[in-house]
Amino acid sequence: MNAPELGLPMAVPAGGLPSRVRIHEVGARDGLQNEKATVPTAVKAEFIRRLAGTGLGTIEATSFVHPRWVPQLADAEELYPAVSDLPVSLPVLVPNARGLDRALALGARRVAVFASATESFAKANLNRTVDEALAMFEPVVGRAKAEDLHVRGYLSMCFGDPWEGAVPVPQVVRVCRALLDMGCDELSLGDTVGVATPGHVTALLTALTEAGVPVSALGVHFHDTYGQALANTLAALQQGVSTVDASAGGLGGCPYAKSATGNLATEDLVWMLRGLGIDTGVDLGRLVATSVWMAAHLGRTSPSRTVRALSHQEQ
Amino acid sequence: MNAPELGLPMAVPAGGLPSRVRIHEVGARDGLQNEKATVPTAVKAEFIRRLAGTGLGTIEATSFVHPRWVPQLADAEELYPAVSDLPVSLPVLVPNARGLDRALALGARRVAVFASATESFAKANLNRTVDEALAMFEPVVGRAKAEDLHVRGYLSMCFGDPWEGAVPVPQVVRVCRALLDMGCDELSLGDTVGVATPGHVTALLTALTEAGVPVSALGVHFHDTYGQALANTLAALQQGVSTVDASAGGLGGCPYAKSATGNLATEDLVWMLRGLGIDTGVDLGRLVATSVWMAAHLGRTSPSRTVRALSHQEQ
Repeated sequence: MNAPELGLPMAVPAGGLPSRVRIHEVGARDGLQNEKATVPTAVKAEFIRRLAGTGLGTIEATSFVHPRWVPQLADAEELYPAVSDLPVSLPVLVPNARGLDRALALGARRVAVFASATESFAKANLNRTVDEALAMFEPVVGRAKAEDLHVRGYLSMCFGDPWEGAVPVPQVVRVCRALLDMGCDELSLGDTVGVATPGHVTALLTALTEAGVPVSALGVHFHDTYGQALANTLAALQQGVSTVDASAGGLGGCPYAKSATGNLATEDLVWMLRGLGIDTGVDLGRLVATSVWMAAHLGRTSPSRTVRALSHQEQ
Repeated sequence: MNAPELGLPMAVPAGGLPSRVRIHEVGARDGLQNEKATVPTAVKAEFIRRLAGTGLGTIEATSFVHPRWVPQLADAEELYPAVSDLPVSLPVLVPNARGLDRALALGARRVAVFASATESFAKANLNRTVDEALAMFEPVVGRAKAEDLHVRGYLSMCFGDPWEGAVPVPQVVRVCRALLDMGCDELSLGDTVGVATPGHVTALLTALTEAGVPVSALGVHFHDTYGQALANTLAALQQGVSTVDASAGGLGGCPYAKSATGNLATEDLVWMLRGLGIDTGVDLGRLVATSVWMAAHLGRTSPSRTVRALSHQEQ
């Protein structure tokens, strides 16, 4: 006797959580950037188009980093115009003034800079000290704000760093303040190597609030390396965070940390939020279908539990 | 530049959580029972022995169900004496009076009965109504208590049921009360098909507390089918639950639900608890090594994210 198909979870709201969560979808940029085999521009555009069709309202499209550093995203000039008609926000990464010029030339209205909370990762990723990186971003953010763009500041290694171990909370708060002071509209607190646990999340968010950072300016970006991403997200929601980064199908990883698996899967997040009665506007069935479609292009199955369960993929 | 190995997470306690959690390890019973290929008794015994060597204090050993229903555990009479010298608790499943006789004959001191919160699953799993199953358990529990055994009551389908959909909280509370009233020392609230989300967990635990059930008598048993198990565990800890079922390496599944993947992986749980500063007594490195050893015997990799990350297995 086999059981019938399961529906969606029963919505049972919990107290003290945001009524609506904005998902910042990073699959097309953060998810794909470490793929070794080049994904054709047309496939990326179709991926973004399908993601937009699921109801996701913020879809990070690409990065205007130098092609030498991220060859997978070297087609930003071709990709962006191919999707810019979509009625969604399409933030793009701009690592420096040249990247901002390229983004502006294509009409981008939301950009993001990419800072590090630790010296080791600033050195590895940007070949600069933390403060040198901030100094490099300052005119970029200033010009973006002068052009009336929305600016997101990514902050990597907010919890642990593979070289430095646990990252002290005050160190993270300092860089957050610097990014906001230079004009960033929102921050994305990244657990790049997946070592955060819920108490650590609560401690960092509490410290940021105490430092005067409005929780409305904070997003969280968890990796599921040790299976902690969704529990950490719950802890962040309990602190009032209502912007959560996730990657369709759990695409992505970190090239600088050996066993770092992907980002939090958007589907696992949507499942939890739907169960909590929190509105996201996302059609889960369409999203799963999109991730299955993308996984087929990449030649492997999705690591997302929800994608696997709803599409009957084997572990 | 590759990053060095990561250590364990930084311990950052969160407020309002238990200081110690007892992990009820179910890998050897619940994890193995659905394996199609027979696992040799000596391998099971070695698995339990290695689990005991990690510091786990409660290791469910086997089931005294009729071999026709669970062929994998038909060796209970051989297995139990092979591990009963271990200085840990070794609960065993007893489905009925005959099973209890067999367990008592071998000197078992902790037994568990297996009830259902829904009529559909009671019918599928026990071929009885919920109340008929309870009536069958009553003399079993009574005799076990007369013999001074510790009795656990498993309750399946506490959140959703593949036939019935969402399971009303009062229905679960009623069966919990019945199991406690007949003498069960503790209950394990099972999300057999993995559809629970944190608000639902909070709602059920709140209702049980309001019905006079002490939280110290409650354990939780989550499945990771949709990736929700650890977030649900966090919600349960926040309600004061301090007994959590988990399966080493995430072994196990539910034979009655198509895409139901395994139990919460003990390693992912231990990682979170360690990060929360909650004592479990478990050596995570030894536990990962044990799961890798068992996975090799089963001819596949572990679905646990923590096992994969710490043992450098690919997704």
